[in-house]
This record gives sequence, structure tokens and C-alpha cells, in this order.
Amino acid sequence: MKKIGVVLSGCGVRDGSEIHEAVFTLLAIDRQGAEAVCMAPNTDFPVTDHLTMQETGERRNALVEAARIARGNIRDIKDVKAADLDAVVFPGGFGAAKNLCDFAMKGAGATVHPEVARLLNEMALAGKPIGAICIAPTLIATVLGKELSPTVTIGTDSGTAAEIEKTGATHQDCPVRDFVVDNKNKIVSTPAYMLATHISEAYEGIDKCVKAVIELI
Amino acid sequence: MKKIGVVLSGCGVRDGSEIHEAVFTLLAIDRQGAEAVCMAPNTDFPVTDHLTMQETGERRNALVEAARIARGNIRDIKDVKAADLDAVVFPGGFGAAKNLCDFAMKGAGATVHPEVARLLNEMALAGKPIGAICIAPTLIATVLGKELSPTVTIGTDSGTAAEIEKTGATHQDCPVRDFVVDNKNKIVSTPAYMLATHISEAYEGIDKCVKAVIELI
Repeated sequence: MKKIGVVLSGCGVRDGSEIHEAVFTLLAIDRQGAEAVCMAPNTDFPVTDHLTMQETGERRNALVEAARIARGNIRDIKDVKAADLDAVVFPGGFGAAKNLCDFAMKGAGATVHPEVARLLNEMALAGKPIGAICIAPTLIATVLGKELSPTVTIGTDSGTAAEIEKTGATHQDCPVRDFVVDNKNKIVSTPAYMLATHISEAYEGIDKCVKAVIELI
Repeated sequence: MKKIGVVLSGCGVRDGSEIHEAVFTLLAIDRQGAEAVCMAPNTDFPVTDHLTMQETGERRNALVEAARIARGNIRDIKDVKAADLDAVVFPGGFGAAKNLCDFAMKGAGATVHPEVARLLNEMALAGKPIGAICIAPTLIATVLGKELSPTVTIGTDSGTAAEIEKTGATHQDCPVRDFVVDNKNKIVSTPAYMLATHISEAYEGIDKCVKAVIELI
């Protein structure tokens, strides 16, 4: 059975993984007859109250909170090697741009959590497919942009697209129910909640994106 | 557009709403062309660490945490009347049996959060359909069992089924990808993670259950 890594960053769109995107990623993997290997970095983050959208001053742990989405079946990313996986997918949510790296604050000059960068570089070197959803393509561009010049999409947001292109990556506009494939680098991306106004739009794009990732194995 | 209430109880299978079940409920509602009206009670609950499965001693608020699943688009259940809704669905997770009522601790002798009981009674009185997923049918039985003798399913767990029958309700065994309809009372239920070993099984049962709820409007 093909093993697909799913890199989570917490549990909630404002301070972790976007929950709908993460769940649709897990569903698409299962429906393709593959096995999801959930993981997250063991790192703290500042909590946002999702009712008021204000930071609370509290801190939580990305691995512990991501375990809510994974129903406890999750590993510390530091213990996962590319050799354990056939492909990897990064759901979105601000956690992808705040906890896995600091692109949300620093744009193209972002630094990346060392274990996230390590796994991404291992996957690219092994020629294994990478999927990235919503804002997560900014993370891919930050790690791989200079060396591989990948083509990715985050939808149509020109400011984010400009930052992506500063890394050496190319941004390609894409509608919400579709996805972009970089065949050379085996990188697939879809806009999801960068554009979705309905949950079914995010579902459709993610379902197609994950299928395309698995077909590239 | 038909308005379907979705009653959440937090964010995580062990101390709130089961996340996959809640997301699939929202997806099914949207794909049916209806609108989800998310709500939760404004009540605190004890936190379970979903990595260790141990209680942490911390407390969180069900409405604030459920807002993570609803992406902030959620109301306090006390402000929602049956007149605002065409139907209502209760996803599962231990929160349905610990935060919306205390069935998990007290079985058929459970007490129910007053606003949850109030809305359920209003919906039943108005003849509006009710959906219940996973363990949530225990809540329906606790509130409506004596008066309406509804038929529900939580899958095949005989201990839980026996407690359900003590309320005056009837339990009907049901496979994970299927659902049970009580046409007289317009109550639809599906086992989801009471039985599911794959996320796609929970998805399929919930998709059918929500469609059946909407067809009963």
C-alpha cells in the first residue's frame, strides 16, 4: 500500500492546519487505496481564538493539536524519513505559513522549521511527488524555489504570487476547483481556501490534487 | 436555501466533535445546495491530549473550539431557534456524549445541556428532520426517547444499544456505510466512527445520512 505523508501544523485555519483541507486530504488518500502517514513538528505556536479571531496569549503544541485531526494516529516529523513515504502532501491553513515556516511574516525571506525543510529536500532528491494546498505552496517555494524553480499555484493572489516568484519559483494562476502540476519536479498544488467560498470547492480541488500526486508515484 | 443546523461540541474526537464527521456533515450540506448553520453551547469542558489520550487538567470552551471547525462562522446555540432551521444534524465525537449531555458517564439517566434539549424539543414539535451521527443518537434518545420512542442506530455496540433502549427508544443495528431512517419522527442516524475503520466509510455513511435528512424536509 502506498504511503502518503500528510504534514500538519496544528488544528484550525488561523493558527494551524485548515481543518477541512486536512480532512479532505485524508479522505482522498483513503479513497485512492493509499495510507496516510500524519505528522507534525513538535513546536509551540501562539493560539488564535477562532470565534473572535484575536490572539489569546496562550501557546499550544502543533503536534498535540494536529493529533485531533489525525485521531491520535500521528508522528513527530523528525522521526519520518523520505524512505518511509511514497509521496507527501501539505494541507494549508496559517499554520503552514506560520508554524512550518515564517512566510506569513517574512515572505520570500522566510526560514523553515529544520525538520520540514529536511523532509522536503529528501523527497525532492528522491524524486517523490509533493502536494501543496492553499498557502502551503509558499513553503515549497521557500525550500525548493532557488534550486528547482518549481511551478506552483496559490490561486490568484498577486501579492503572495510575487513573493513566491522572488524565491525562484514560478506562480501560475489557477481556479479553485482545479490544480497545477509541475511534471518535472513532481509538485502538484491547488488553491483550496485561498479562493474557495464553498467547502465543496475546496473538496473538489483537493480531491483532484491528491489523485494527481498519487498518479505521479 | 434550506438551512441545516449543525450542532458542534468542541474540536476533537476525545473531548469535542469528531472532526472528520463534522467536516463531512458540512460538505454534504453544501453539496445538497443547502446552507449549514453551525452552533455550539457556550460551555467549558476538560481537555484530552489527543496524542497521549490523557486528560490534561486544562479546560477549554466548546463554542470557541468548535469555531475552528466552522472557520469562525458559528453561533451560540442559545440564540438559535427551530424557526431559524429546516433541519438539524448532530455529528459525533465524545463531546456529543460529554459536553452536550452526560450520556458517556450516566447512560440512559443522562442530563442534557438545557439549550440543546430546548432546540431538540422545538425541532421535534415542529416536525423538522433531525440527523444524528456516531454516538450522537444517544443524545436524541435521551431527549426524545420517552415521548416519541424513536428508532436510531449507533452501529452494533450492544452495551450502548441497551442504554438507548432504556430511554424508550429502539435501537436498530446498522452497517457503517448505511443509515437508519425513522420516518414517523423524521430522525436519521448513521454509525460513522462507532464502526468505521477507514475515513471513507465514515464519509459514505454521513453523506447518505445528510441527504436523507434533507429529503425529509
